[in-house]
Amino acid sequence: MTASRMKIQNSPTIRRMPAYLHRLLEMQQEGRESVSSTELAEYMHIEPIVVRKDIALTGISGQRRVGYHVDELIRFIKNYLGWQNPVRAALIGAGALGTALLGYDDFAHYGLILDSVFDCDAKKIGTRIRGKEIFSMESMEERLKKSPVSLAIICVSSAAAQSVVDRLVNVGVRCIWNFANVSLRTPPGVIVQREVIAGGLAMLSVKMKNSRLHPGAEILE
Amino acid sequence: MTASRMKIQNSPTIRRMPAYLHRLLEMQQEGRESVSSTELAEYMHIEPIVVRKDIALTGISGQRRVGYHVDELIRFIKNYLGWQNPVRAALIGAGALGTALLGYDDFAHYGLILDSVFDCDAKKIGTRIRGKEIFSMESMEERLKKSPVSLAIICVSSAAAQSVVDRLVNVGVRCIWNFANVSLRTPPGVIVQREVIAGGLAMLSVKMKNSRLHPGAEILE
Repeated sequence: MTASRMKIQNSPTIRRMPAYLHRLLEMQQEGRESVSSTELAEYMHIEPIVVRKDIALTGISGQRRVGYHVDELIRFIKNYLGWQNPVRAALIGAGALGTALLGYDDFAHYGLILDSVFDCDAKKIGTRIRGKEIFSMESMEERLKKSPVSLAIICVSSAAAQSVVDRLVNVGVRCIWNFANVSLRTPPGVIVQREVIAGGLAMLSVKMKNSRLHPGAEILE
Repeated sequence: MTASRMKIQNSPTIRRMPAYLHRLLEMQQEGRESVSSTELAEYMHIEPIVVRKDIALTGISGQRRVGYHVDELIRFIKNYLGWQNPVRAALIGAGALGTALLGYDDFAHYGLILDSVFDCDAKKIGTRIRGKEIFSMESMEERLKKSPVSLAIICVSSAAAQSVVDRLVNVGVRCIWNFANVSLRTPPGVIVQREVIAGGLAMLSVKMKNSRLHPGAEILE
């Protein structure tokens, strides 16, 4: 008997949420109290009706003429994504991509705490990259047992990814954000999100193709 | 009067295409001649019906019991994405993220030729990163006039991105893949794809939330 299956709905909406949140957090910094769906649509390069549908999914209700309260909308989006509480994460692989992720300031605003960074390069171990100490791959299990994380970000090579993930699963990690270009095998109950960087290139390519077929049209997502 | 608007349909399907292609190219290397939707579904961690719908959009027809011919499916996916002909691209910003993209081997299989790499760091200019010579930001216009590109990949800081894109648009670049965490203003006819790295984190977070609400269920995309 197979376990029940649950399909994630609204994935384009979910993927847009961090971009809304990024702009709303900027607005909060600027002291803005409210925002209209039209303004968010211009920022996102999508239709206002899409913005209204996206935001309706968070459960907030806008007010006629006022739009959405910035603080409230931030709270609703964070709740929708489950970002109201901080999550501790490990980063495995501090190469170019791992280093880029360590520099992604928004993670802190989203409650993602990059707690432990591991790499196999002896020259990096014990040094700091973007303020984070780099630990050896050999020490991974020991350290994660002492300081458990909810999430691991995989930035190792495709060839190394499966064995790293097996080790992480063995010490109880149940949630994997996989940047290696490989499909991972994991036991039931482990959640994997695979990032395929070329997914964005595919989107761009289809937009280019459509703009050749429909010259002059504004291509919206 | 506003220009006509054209909404991109099927964005989750489009985003999945490079992952199918990646696996199919591996199979081609392995000498495999055919593949079933069930096998691709297992690889992608999605339902077979979703695979069949995705692939049907490319216009190919599968054969009962045989499945899809690997070579033919590769060709149909490349045509669907407009990847049948090579595209020359410039990379702006050879920091950690830019360096990671230079190491993404699949781009070559997708016909993306990273032709010119620019950076503002005097220490990098004239050196090679992953085999690519780094040119100065000052030389960007001159070089792109001599060797035009169809596409520019923006890996500079958010603060620098808009002025870099303005310069690219001025020399005729009409297609921007933006990794800076900022919404760009571009004139009509310029196509922009913004990558929000936290989009994947949002997907993962919603999967985590659903797995808490429906323990034991397999969470599919």
